[in-house]
Amino acid sequence: MLNTQKKLYPETEFVSGKWNKEINVRDFIQRNYTPYEGNSDFLEGPTEATKKLWNECLDLFEKERENLGVLDMDTEVVSTITSHGAGYIDKAYEKIVGLQTDKPLKRSLQPFGGIRMAEGACEAYDYKVDPEISEIFRKYRKTHNQGVFDAYTPEMRKARHAAILTGLPDAYGRGRIIGDYRRIALYGIDRLIQDKLEQHSSLDGEMTPDKIQLKEEIADQISALKEMIELGKIYGFDISKPARNAQEAVQWLYFGYLSAVKEQNGAAMSIGRTSTFLDIFIERDLKEGVITESEAQELIDHFIMKLRLVKFARTPEYNALFSGDPTWVTESIGGMGVDGRTLVTKNSFRYLHTLENLGTAPEPNMTVLWSTRLPHNFKQYAAHISITTSSIQYENDDMMRQVHGDDYAIACCVSSMVVGKEMQFFGARANLAKCLLYAINGGIDERLKEQVGPKYRPITSEYLDYDEVMEKYDDMMEWLAGLYVNTLNVIHYMHDKYCYEKAQMALHDRDVKRYFATGIAGLSVVADSLSAIKYAKVKTIRDENGIVVDYVVEGDYPKYGNNDDRVDEIAVNLVHTFMNKIRKRYTYRNSIPTMSILTITSNVVYGKKTGNTPDGRKQGVPLAPGANPMHGRDTNGAVASLASVSKLPFGDAQDGISNTFSIIPNALGKDEVFMGDLSVNFDCGCCEDRIE
Amino acid sequence: MLNTQKKLYPETEFVSGKWNKEINVRDFIQRNYTPYEGNSDFLEGPTEATKKLWNECLDLFEKERENLGVLDMDTEVVSTITSHGAGYIDKAYEKIVGLQTDKPLKRSLQPFGGIRMAEGACEAYDYKVDPEISEIFRKYRKTHNQGVFDAYTPEMRKARHAAILTGLPDAYGRGRIIGDYRRIALYGIDRLIQDKLEQHSSLDGEMTPDKIQLKEEIADQISALKEMIELGKIYGFDISKPARNAQEAVQWLYFGYLSAVKEQNGAAMSIGRTSTFLDIFIERDLKEGVITESEAQELIDHFIMKLRLVKFARTPEYNALFSGDPTWVTESIGGMGVDGRTLVTKNSFRYLHTLENLGTAPEPNMTVLWSTRLPHNFKQYAAHISITTSSIQYENDDMMRQVHGDDYAIACCVSSMVVGKEMQFFGARANLAKCLLYAINGGIDERLKEQVGPKYRPITSEYLDYDEVMEKYDDMMEWLAGLYVNTLNVIHYMHDKYCYEKAQMALHDRDVKRYFATGIAGLSVVADSLSAIKYAKVKTIRDENGIVVDYVVEGDYPKYGNNDDRVDEIAVNLVHTFMNKIRKRYTYRNSIPTMSILTITSNVVYGKKTGNTPDGRKQGVPLAPGANPMHGRDTNGAVASLASVSKLPFGDAQDGISNTFSIIPNALGKDEVFMGDLSVNFDCGCCEDRIE
Repeated sequence: MLNTQKKLYPETEFVSGKWNKEINVRDFIQRNYTPYEGNSDFLEGPTEATKKLWNECLDLFEKERENLGVLDMDTEVVSTITSHGAGYIDKAYEKIVGLQTDKPLKRSLQPFGGIRMAEGACEAYDYKVDPEISEIFRKYRKTHNQGVFDAYTPEMRKARHAAILTGLPDAYGRGRIIGDYRRIALYGIDRLIQDKLEQHSSLDGEMTPDKIQLKEEIADQISALKEMIELGKIYGFDISKPARNAQEAVQWLYFGYLSAVKEQNGAAMSIGRTSTFLDIFIERDLKEGVITESEAQELIDHFIMKLRLVKFARTPEYNALFSGDPTWVTESIGGMGVDGRTLVTKNSFRYLHTLENLGTAPEPNMTVLWSTRLPHNFKQYAAHISITTSSIQYENDDMMRQVHGDDYAIACCVSSMVVGKEMQFFGARANLAKCLLYAINGGIDERLKEQVGPKYRPITSEYLDYDEVMEKYDDMMEWLAGLYVNTLNVIHYMHDKYCYEKAQMALHDRDVKRYFATGIAGLSVVADSLSAIKYAKVKTIRDENGIVVDYVVEGDYPKYGNNDDRVDEIAVNLVHTFMNKIRKRYTYRNSIPTMSILTITSNVVYGKKTGNTPDGRKQGVPLAPGANPMHGRDTNGAVASLASVSKLPFGDAQDGISNTFSIIPNALGKDEVFMGDLSVNFDCGCCEDRIE
Repeated sequence: MLNTQKKLYPETEFVSGKWNKEINVRDFIQRNYTPYEGNSDFLEGPTEATKKLWNECLDLFEKERENLGVLDMDTEVVSTITSHGAGYIDKAYEKIVGLQTDKPLKRSLQPFGGIRMAEGACEAYDYKVDPEISEIFRKYRKTHNQGVFDAYTPEMRKARHAAILTGLPDAYGRGRIIGDYRRIALYGIDRLIQDKLEQHSSLDGEMTPDKIQLKEEIADQISALKEMIELGKIYGFDISKPARNAQEAVQWLYFGYLSAVKEQNGAAMSIGRTSTFLDIFIERDLKEGVITESEAQELIDHFIMKLRLVKFARTPEYNALFSGDPTWVTESIGGMGVDGRTLVTKNSFRYLHTLENLGTAPEPNMTVLWSTRLPHNFKQYAAHISITTSSIQYENDDMMRQVHGDDYAIACCVSSMVVGKEMQFFGARANLAKCLLYAINGGIDERLKEQVGPKYRPITSEYLDYDEVMEKYDDMMEWLAGLYVNTLNVIHYMHDKYCYEKAQMALHDRDVKRYFATGIAGLSVVADSLSAIKYAKVKTIRDENGIVVDYVVEGDYPKYGNNDDRVDEIAVNLVHTFMNKIRKRYTYRNSIPTMSILTITSNVVYGKKTGNTPDGRKQGVPLAPGANPMHGRDTNGAVASLASVSKLPFGDAQDGISNTFSIIPNALGKDEVFMGDLSVNFDCGCCEDRIE
């Protein structure tokens, strides 16, 4: 605990610059941070307070598990930034405070996205939402989910039901927006409100709906900022002013994040890139003796502990599909600056060190922004923590830095965005494998035997002809891309209207770059199917109504994942073609269309909903995850498999390409020796889809 | 009362036509109505039931007056279409049933437009809104008023405060939308829902925000239609099917209107053009002996009685400005068909006759659509009722029929729109007299001494130069027109978003023509001021800061209202110029800009807020109402005065030009002799503005 003899606040002023004149956290970081190239020897173990608190948390987690996954649920208080009084794990020991509700692990009630989902989540655990709240959100306050279904077309409903469009964020929060929570620590809320008021004024002039919308959003953001000040007060802090020391900096920043999770149950509530920013405050405190290294680590441990406690009320189906109860509190660590200095600081080590002090955990999702030029010592330490905890995600900083500069962070698992300047309209994905079957069957769903797609002429021949299939597939993709984009337009219009992320967006600039993030599933199945049609012979098997329900492949064909251009090129063209069809469309708020090739677990569900395919895959067999080759077909070794994936055009899949790749430790050398510079875009298993 | 021996329903089928295949009330009317050119001899007096009920109403009105204007207020139940159980005056006697709440004259609670206004209205009469409802509409459900103020610019707030923009519908419901309530009687709700479902589907395709908005609105309309069926059930009727006799027709139609007033507290809740439509059902019942004339009159008397009971919870300021407690239940009666037949029926007489059976009343606002070709007997009867009750408004059908055909109605007092096909975004008005003072003082408000308009160069000379004033005035009008349109854009965006008229719009076509109805005040003051500057000499009197605060007119000048082209042309140009400046702007939902020159009482308030003017008018002196000459200045007699007004270009003031014109009865000939074809657009005193 703090020695009462020590001074509370350091006296040194930070190096000033542009950040004093405008909201510019990056400038503050660049002028004030201390790159660290040393090793991990300086790190301290957990304090007694940390151990005590964490043990209490472990007890709570244990109770939660015993209680079938949920310890307690709020059924009466609608969660808002200021809805609850102060809550603690054990107040006397907590250096960083703040819970989503009044008790740890008590899940908050968040009906703005959808009252039925909120009720469903409660009922799954034998809780019942206060009938008055159910009434309010049915009679007076429309929800995102209701809005979406009010505007959906029958075609959209069908496509969703048939699962050619999958996991659409129409029944859950879209997430993938990162507030720049650092701004609160650096500037204090008063200054941020001032900035937002100026933004509001800057939108005077001709009042088009676009402008009115943004103006109202900024007004809502200002309300959120005012509520954040109240939240601080509830816990006895005045966050209207900048943080004066490291403890306040961590606390202020956390209050911002806490506001976000009190307000939004987003599928991915990532926290950003905070470690190097906070290091600046810690370094100053350390230099002036305000804190010791042990106390610094304690702050980070307590902060991370709080992030580990973040939970949402969700339905069991959601949890089953997401393989757990994920929140995707992704924290992006390390990376290199565009000036060549590393952004690794001592605090980058402290963050990873929490995995030792508190033990391993999936959340927060510690993500190292990997560069070949990262300091050797940090690489060593990250490798060590990876090997001992399996809890680190790596992302390719060298690639992303080219696009975003050096103050981006990862939302969810791979979606990179500049903190406070970019956000994403999450779009789940379209099932291209099913689309191929629709092309063959003239829009009739092979599983439901219903017309879902347009009534184009089906293929009637016994053997599939490559050119005919390609022509029909192109038409069907054209239809699917249009339907997909329009469906997402509805979803995001309604999310903005009924479930706007005002706390998170309050910590963004006025003119945010918005990505319209589409995604595809089934890439390798389609590539292999088309390859089979082209290079082998594929015979159709029809049911009594003439619908093709199975395929017999006669002969062999090149398979994706073996560095064989004949098929790899099919995959490349597919990605390019579909992305171009997406690009043709109007995207909500003129957002920038992107695409991902990204699934980790939901591909299993997609497989269940996709019939037999012309590559010989049987109905129910999982699609390969993300951009992976189909399991067992990449027979030319790891390098060839990776080579196939690496041909995919990043420019057409800018939201990320995932390749789930398992390597047995021995393949990398002896234990605890770092694995080198293998840095394909590893993927963490997020962004999965909620079933209907 | 109904003779139980008589049959309940007639058997004749209506003449079929297009209306059977599509929603087309006009076609039904044209094929089935019976023009009536006879006299009023057929009319029957009130039945015992009518007398008893109306006496009970009179008692209630008396109690209401004793109770300072409000009998009872609902403070706990938010008014929706189905919020209340059945309410009656005296159930056993009522042929047409349905009240806004569970008791007559109990005002309903309507917070969607603004919770503060709802609370204010209650508090003015010592009622208090249930704190839980206050909380809901502050925490969970934003209101129209809040939305508007979230997006307003400081300039808008200032202009509103200074009253250069006046009476904006940002703190009250815009009204001026007429549901085609006849559709319910003719088609039954089921058929209307079917039609709306088809409309919803017809909007599939590319999902732009405009389309998503309309799609969601139609979904909301469908909800409203379903609620209307529930409302019918609450009173024991099944309005999902068409009305089978006259009583059902009146009742079904009234349920539609009742839904509208349960849902909306609009400044003008007009009912449309219902008398000839209902006459068709009554004629059929009469022919088959289902009802007698006395029973027919009873239906209409009871219906009109219900309309007289319509009340809203409003603040005393609102009532003071509107000179009472108006609802503008305008019913448009008579007129001529485009085929040359009169649209007057026996039922047109019955409607007017309610003023005899029940006595005189301001509501519903009985409006005769006047044509020189109306049947003589009807003219006679209308004149008789006018003279004995002073309760009829006349509007020029011959003029409006050219624009709208023969199934339009008047919303509020002069705003004509085709029933079910057109609506209006009400826009209150801009004060052109104040705008002239701003031009002279470089945007500084002469009363507040604050910069409200842009900081253009003021006039610095002692005597005003016409050309200089005109140039500066043009610039200032340009600014005002832009600000005005933008302010209205915000208001109507938010009204649609937070207080959408789903019940009324459910009784409209899909593609509604929307008028963007601006208005101007102070026309004659400006015309006279500019005339004085041009034809006399106007000396400025300045305060210590150089602001012009008064004017001395040296010499005489032509005054508007004397058929003198020198000044009348100034007025004409002014109207044309300002309307063109309005037309330059983007108007919300690409609505069609129109303008009115229309005030009746609010011109008094505007006068209070407008400083001394260059025509010699002193601060505080009322502006002339509407397009009237300034009081006492039209010295060349009535014809010259009317001639000046009639020069104003209707094409630039399509929403109506009002001229308040008093004529002593003797001027028209002996008493009870009809006054001939004097049919300037009389005005009823509605459309007044709510003070801040």
